[in-house]
Amino acid sequence: MTVSYTGEVSTCKGFGCFLKLLFRWRGSIYKLVWPDLFLFLGTFFSLSTLYRVVLDEEQKRVFEKISNYCRNYGNLIPISFILGFYVSIVVGRWWDQYKSIPWTDSIAVFVSASIQGQDEKGRVIRRTIMRYCCLSMTMCFTMISPRVKKRFPSLDHFVEAGLLLENEKEIIDEVNRKCAAYHKIWIPIIWASSIVTRARKEGKIRDDFAVKTIIDELNKFRGQCGLLISYDWISVPLVYTQVVTLAVYSYFAAAIMGSQWLVKPLKGDNDEEIDLIIPVFTLLQFFFYMGWLKVAESLVNPFGDDDDDFELNWLVDRNLQVSYLIVDEMHHDHPELMKDQWWG
Amino acid sequence: MTVSYTGEVSTCKGFGCFLKLLFRWRGSIYKLVWPDLFLFLGTFFSLSTLYRVVLDEEQKRVFEKISNYCRNYGNLIPISFILGFYVSIVVGRWWDQYKSIPWTDSIAVFVSASIQGQDEKGRVIRRTIMRYCCLSMTMCFTMISPRVKKRFPSLDHFVEAGLLLENEKEIIDEVNRKCAAYHKIWIPIIWASSIVTRARKEGKIRDDFAVKTIIDELNKFRGQCGLLISYDWISVPLVYTQVVTLAVYSYFAAAIMGSQWLVKPLKGDNDEEIDLIIPVFTLLQFFFYMGWLKVAESLVNPFGDDDDDFELNWLVDRNLQVSYLIVDEMHHDHPELMKDQWWG
Amino acid sequence: MTVSYTGEVSTCKGFGCFLKLLFRWRGSIYKLVWPDLFLFLGTFFSLSTLYRVVLDEEQKRVFEKISNYCRNYGNLIPISFILGFYVSIVVGRWWDQYKSIPWTDSIAVFVSASIQGQDEKGRVIRRTIMRYCCLSMTMCFTMISPRVKKRFPSLDHFVEAGLLLENEKEIIDEVNRKCAAYHKIWIPIIWASSIVTRARKEGKIRDDFAVKTIIDELNKFRGQCGLLISYDWISVPLVYTQVVTLAVYSYFAAAIMGSQWLVKPLKGDNDEEIDLIIPVFTLLQFFFYMGWLKVAESLVNPFGDDDDDFELNWLVDRNLQVSYLIVDEMHHDHPELMKDQWWG
Amino acid sequence: MTVSYTGEVSTCKGFGCFLKLLFRWRGSIYKLVWPDLFLFLGTFFSLSTLYRVVLDEEQKRVFEKISNYCRNYGNLIPISFILGFYVSIVVGRWWDQYKSIPWTDSIAVFVSASIQGQDEKGRVIRRTIMRYCCLSMTMCFTMISPRVKKRFPSLDHFVEAGLLLENEKEIIDEVNRKCAAYHKIWIPIIWASSIVTRARKEGKIRDDFAVKTIIDELNKFRGQCGLLISYDWISVPLVYTQVVTLAVYSYFAAAIMGSQWLVKPLKGDNDEEIDLIIPVFTLLQFFFYMGWLKVAESLVNPFGDDDDDFELNWLVDRNLQVSYLIVDEMHHDHPELMKDQWWG
Amino acid sequence: MTVSYTGEVSTCKGFGCFLKLLFRWRGSIYKLVWPDLFLFLGTFFSLSTLYRVVLDEEQKRVFEKISNYCRNYGNLIPISFILGFYVSIVVGRWWDQYKSIPWTDSIAVFVSASIQGQDEKGRVIRRTIMRYCCLSMTMCFTMISPRVKKRFPSLDHFVEAGLLLENEKEIIDEVNRKCAAYHKIWIPIIWASSIVTRARKEGKIRDDFAVKTIIDELNKFRGQCGLLISYDWISVPLVYTQVVTLAVYSYFAAAIMGSQWLVKPLKGDNDEEIDLIIPVFTLLQFFFYMGWLKVAESLVNPFGDDDDDFELNWLVDRNLQVSYLIVDEMHHDHPELMKDQWWG
Repeated sequence: MTVSYTGEVSTCKGFGCFLKLLFRWRGSIYKLVWPDLFLFLGTFFSLSTLYRVVLDEEQKRVFEKISNYCRNYGNLIPISFILGFYVSIVVGRWWDQYKSIPWTDSIAVFVSASIQGQDEKGRVIRRTIMRYCCLSMTMCFTMISPRVKKRFPSLDHFVEAGLLLENEKEIIDEVNRKCAAYHKIWIPIIWASSIVTRARKEGKIRDDFAVKTIIDELNKFRGQCGLLISYDWISVPLVYTQVVTLAVYSYFAAAIMGSQWLVKPLKGDNDEEIDLIIPVFTLLQFFFYMGWLKVAESLVNPFGDDDDDFELNWLVDRNLQVSYLIVDEMHHDHPELMKDQWWG
Repeated sequence: MTVSYTGEVSTCKGFGCFLKLLFRWRGSIYKLVWPDLFLFLGTFFSLSTLYRVVLDEEQKRVFEKISNYCRNYGNLIPISFILGFYVSIVVGRWWDQYKSIPWTDSIAVFVSASIQGQDEKGRVIRRTIMRYCCLSMTMCFTMISPRVKKRFPSLDHFVEAGLLLENEKEIIDEVNRKCAAYHKIWIPIIWASSIVTRARKEGKIRDDFAVKTIIDELNKFRGQCGLLISYDWISVPLVYTQVVTLAVYSYFAAAIMGSQWLVKPLKGDNDEEIDLIIPVFTLLQFFFYMGWLKVAESLVNPFGDDDDDFELNWLVDRNLQVSYLIVDEMHHDHPELMKDQWWG
Repeated sequence: MTVSYTGEVSTCKGFGCFLKLLFRWRGSIYKLVWPDLFLFLGTFFSLSTLYRVVLDEEQKRVFEKISNYCRNYGNLIPISFILGFYVSIVVGRWWDQYKSIPWTDSIAVFVSASIQGQDEKGRVIRRTIMRYCCLSMTMCFTMISPRVKKRFPSLDHFVEAGLLLENEKEIIDEVNRKCAAYHKIWIPIIWASSIVTRARKEGKIRDDFAVKTIIDELNKFRGQCGLLISYDWISVPLVYTQVVTLAVYSYFAAAIMGSQWLVKPLKGDNDEEIDLIIPVFTLLQFFFYMGWLKVAESLVNPFGDDDDDFELNWLVDRNLQVSYLIVDEMHHDHPELMKDQWWG
Repeated sequence: MTVSYTGEVSTCKGFGCFLKLLFRWRGSIYKLVWPDLFLFLGTFFSLSTLYRVVLDEEQKRVFEKISNYCRNYGNLIPISFILGFYVSIVVGRWWDQYKSIPWTDSIAVFVSASIQGQDEKGRVIRRTIMRYCCLSMTMCFTMISPRVKKRFPSLDHFVEAGLLLENEKEIIDEVNRKCAAYHKIWIPIIWASSIVTRARKEGKIRDDFAVKTIIDELNKFRGQCGLLISYDWISVPLVYTQVVTLAVYSYFAAAIMGSQWLVKPLKGDNDEEIDLIIPVFTLLQFFFYMGWLKVAESLVNPFGDDDDDFELNWLVDRNLQVSYLIVDEMHHDHPELMKDQWWG
Repeated sequence: MTVSYTGEVSTCKGFGCFLKLLFRWRGSIYKLVWPDLFLFLGTFFSLSTLYRVVLDEEQKRVFEKISNYCRNYGNLIPISFILGFYVSIVVGRWWDQYKSIPWTDSIAVFVSASIQGQDEKGRVIRRTIMRYCCLSMTMCFTMISPRVKKRFPSLDHFVEAGLLLENEKEIIDEVNRKCAAYHKIWIPIIWASSIVTRARKEGKIRDDFAVKTIIDELNKFRGQCGLLISYDWISVPLVYTQVVTLAVYSYFAAAIMGSQWLVKPLKGDNDEEIDLIIPVFTLLQFFFYMGWLKVAESLVNPFGDDDDDFELNWLVDRNLQVSYLIVDEMHHDHPELMKDQWWG
């Protein structure tokens, strides 16, 4: 579920509102970084102990030379640039994906406004169209989100959940047998548009405008589902992700050696250096760079299991309930028209 | 309320127009930064006094070593990069949010042009549709802005303000009882579209085009409200904000030590250094980096209480008044058609 | 008026086409930067003279220490990053504002194609609609451009210019009395849409499509005017502008001291340094950074008085003339249909 | 075929999900970089051997001087900046191209909903329209993708594949004879729109709205094909690509010399340097920079033969099958309307 | 004419596909940079000869001091940042301009589908509308492209080319006499829309939808022409271009001195430096930075005479021929409807 904190940063007073965000655990950098951090510190102190306790003077010299080499050349790795550009792309895609999530509200408003009749026929038509939209959307979500897939592992689970009826399932199975290669999220949309066309013929829809509006909207809905699948299918190119990951990890592999406190550092340089045992600033760097990479890791698939990921199962329930509310309970029912208090 | 200064920078003459902007207090960097600045300076001078007065020679050497360490390694923190990319994202979202704010003018123009009748029925219809739009918008604003929430803490306050009638409130309460989990800002929009459909049936609207236009516009209006809620709900990922905040604060934590004026600085380096007591350039850096972070802090939630935040309460009043003006007082009333002065 | 130079850079031959752009004065960097440059050079040479002529040896040492300090630490100011990101935002907004400028051509084409009749009534209708558009646009421009405000300081000046008739002015005054708080640029648009609706009733417009098209276009026109006002009202946040301005000016305040030619520079460093009297490279830096800032200063309000600003007064005249031409003189008048020369 | 890995990075747990991506071969950086890497290492070790074994002392000094020169000046090449900006542009275009790929689903939905009749005539009309869309799309793909070109080298291959009938091929040949200069992907679209117009006349389409919708959609489809061709025709300017390529390759040409382990390095500098034989960090740099460049190389033409390229042949088959399914088998056939399980 | 190379980079195999792009001349960096390069090298070697041959020891010391000064301070010029941001803006505008180029295909498809009649009248109407579009487009192109201006220096040349008839020219001349100040590219569009309106009245167009569609499309076409003119008129602000140009040229002015090989370089620094006579890395830098600037120079006006510029004359011919083909020869003519090979 999304970690929301906008309410806490509504005003920037005193020492600023971002400071208090540092003391959160859910969705935080600490929660994401700690395993890597432990590995880093473990290796660091092992090597540190090796250097201080085990090695003889000769070996210490070699150790120091390697450490100096790592220290000098580690900065050649252009880590902040590559991370900055990469994270920009990932964040851009992340928000585009959110904006592509289909909501059924538009269709529900149009269906409620256009398809008439409080009788059973009218109600079945309106409810079925909305159910088909939710079905199409959920079929799409099972393809991109492991959590929704877990909830609906097969078509039978759709039937159980009431999104699909038994006779409809048979048709989908039939089509799947004929042509198994491609996804079928468009089937319920086709059904819905057939129902709309029939409703027009049977006079449940008053005018051609409404037919066009609903079918356009259904088609847009299908397009958004398809776009989500495209985002899932075509990730940021693997090469780019690998380049960035390699850069960050090799940077810190070098830093494990390079940030060791040496008894005898580079000659004539900073021989007054203090030995703090813990490499404070390297740890800070670890938080920044590794945290930046984790930003990318948790955003690259916004529909997964991370704290900050969007909960599509919630959306399935919400869309179904709200669209039934709109097209059935609230249908064509508005409060009595009365003069407001400024009537003059 | 937004701090507007475009009028003062309309021309870039003499020493430039930005210089005079430096002498403003409302919405300024000084107002945002000063508490942090005092904290920074306080700590700095405490440590400075400690070093100059309290410590003995031996301890001074340790202090100097720590200071040198902070000075050398503080620059490893990639603060300007990370801030640049982060602020870019925040500024982008900030402007997108402004553009998502729904204005009722479009709907009012369409309603005024399409729904006929100067009789009471016609007026009630037009006014009620606009009131429902304002109601939906205000319900949305209470979810994203603490200031609007304060003004309308409950549905009763909507009734008091005249945005909601008593019988309408009961319906909303009823729906809330049935399904409490999700927001209900779409209810007034559904009502409005029902009124439009009925007005068409009763002949108050001349043609089907107008129905489609108004319902499309109502739906767009609802979509914009929904988008604002999404922006509020799905912030810039917490991890990213934490990484940036950590970077800036730890940078200046290091700078408190690193910018101390040492009696005996790094051997052979800049032993001719002067002691200015106040670390002038570190202060300037503090203004830049901390100010940059404060830009992000005040923009990350543009509907809060900051000087630079957008006043949604003002918009509620403005939209209600202007839409009543358009659909009621100005309705279907244009000045007599006369020849203009270039008539030839 | 915009400084246009695209014609001069149509081809990149010889030493390139940008070189010759360096020798222009209007809208140039030199014109914008010279006052600041004089101030900078004046202060620089005053201090230089002080150092070379007035100070004794002891004081010279202090001067040199301060100069070294400025030289060493001045580079800590992250000026190019902060300028790069800031100018990107300003340039983006600048072009978005140009694209939001409303042109009346679309409406004129639709009005000319849809509203029939060469008789006086038809002509008055078409001309009045276009006049109202120009009126609304000009009212909007007076709010964002000091130059247009100067030309039309009050509604009387609109009447004088023929954009507004006396009876129309009275209605606007009336509305202003009732509700003074908000701008009224939408009034002429409401009038225009009322005229369109009446024209349809009176049969001057053939079909409902045309009504919808014109009213949509009028509404879009109003939306663009509103967007321009938003851009004017909600500037780039003041904090951001202050941060950037502070960065640039304090950088050069430090550079005045830091780029002095010292008799006895940093020990052991570059004691072979030559004394050129004029700090050539600091001057170049001044051109780059200060010029970059001036880019932002002149673009942040694109409708002001700068050389590079857009002349909205010109647009007022152009739109009025061209729309009258389209809807009146050219109305429904096309050359005789003849076979072209490739007829086969 | 696209290398998809989103499923593997759905959650960021433990050491993070990007680490495991490092151990993939298909579409990986290793697969792209290894030939260049071998060349680099080969040259490096040849020179290394030359230096250590062949050269005499005098020559060694010269070698060392050249190496020092390369080491010092190699860093002047602004490689990460230029790569960052260039890759941003390429990645932006890459995704824009994916979004421009035309899918036939929209047209199929509209055709299925609008064109009536289960008789042979109706079916032929619907199938032919879809076939023409697929034909136009495939003709477009042969122009931009070598793989599709290989599959359909001539019009005869279209006939063989069933996308084109013999009599249609003759018409295209005829037009090609008259006007050979320009591509003809719009011909099938013109045919399709003629069929739609005729279907309306013959009453196969119920209303004018549907005609407009389908023709708009056909036109949009043609526009997307045209856009793809534009992207193919107008690449990122050659100069930019050359500048970036030159930068990367000359950087590593310098690095071959500059990263040699010298017996006697720069005097007084880091004479305690260790000799690791393999220049570890230069190799890492090679992976980053060269990998970054390869990202650009494989994305600059997303329809080529790279592992990460999009398989347009697959799309040809998919679009043909799915659109036949939609307009023929599924046409106007929806499951019986039944009450759902929440009916109340 | 555009330099297209996408076909050569379709797959990234072996040493990568960008390497072979380095060996092209047309539209290449070498072709753009060589005059500046010769100037640079000429000056460099003149100064080099002066230093080595002419100057006495005393003067050599001064030369060396100046050279050191240039070398030390030249790096203060923030050239890569400023170039990166500037080129981003220019490349963005370049592609936006390509996307704004109007193509007549959409209008032709709509005209062909909507305006009926194989008789002479119908053909003349369709052909004339398309001719007017091409005329308007070409008039627009003469304003932005020197090459098109050369081909059509006056209205008489339009008549000669068959785009304009004699009687039409007289009308334009007439309007030009009345109102000379503004461009007239909208006149043919007004004519075309008048013809469409008349065709509807005379029954050549079946329904109102088609009228609206064509007039909308004509208006969009006019809008795109207007946008192209705006891009031409409002360039990237002159100040920005000057700042970037100054930065690059002054950088290399400093580099001419700073990269001289000195007999006696900075004391104690790199006195083991080798004398290569040619400043290899400065030359490479020259290629990168100057090449980057040339990217901007050749893209800032994409309709000029550069190798990489878009050939608008070609487009004039193409649009005229293809639109005649669509609306005349191919009009309402589709192959006989036949069953395809998968009919089942």
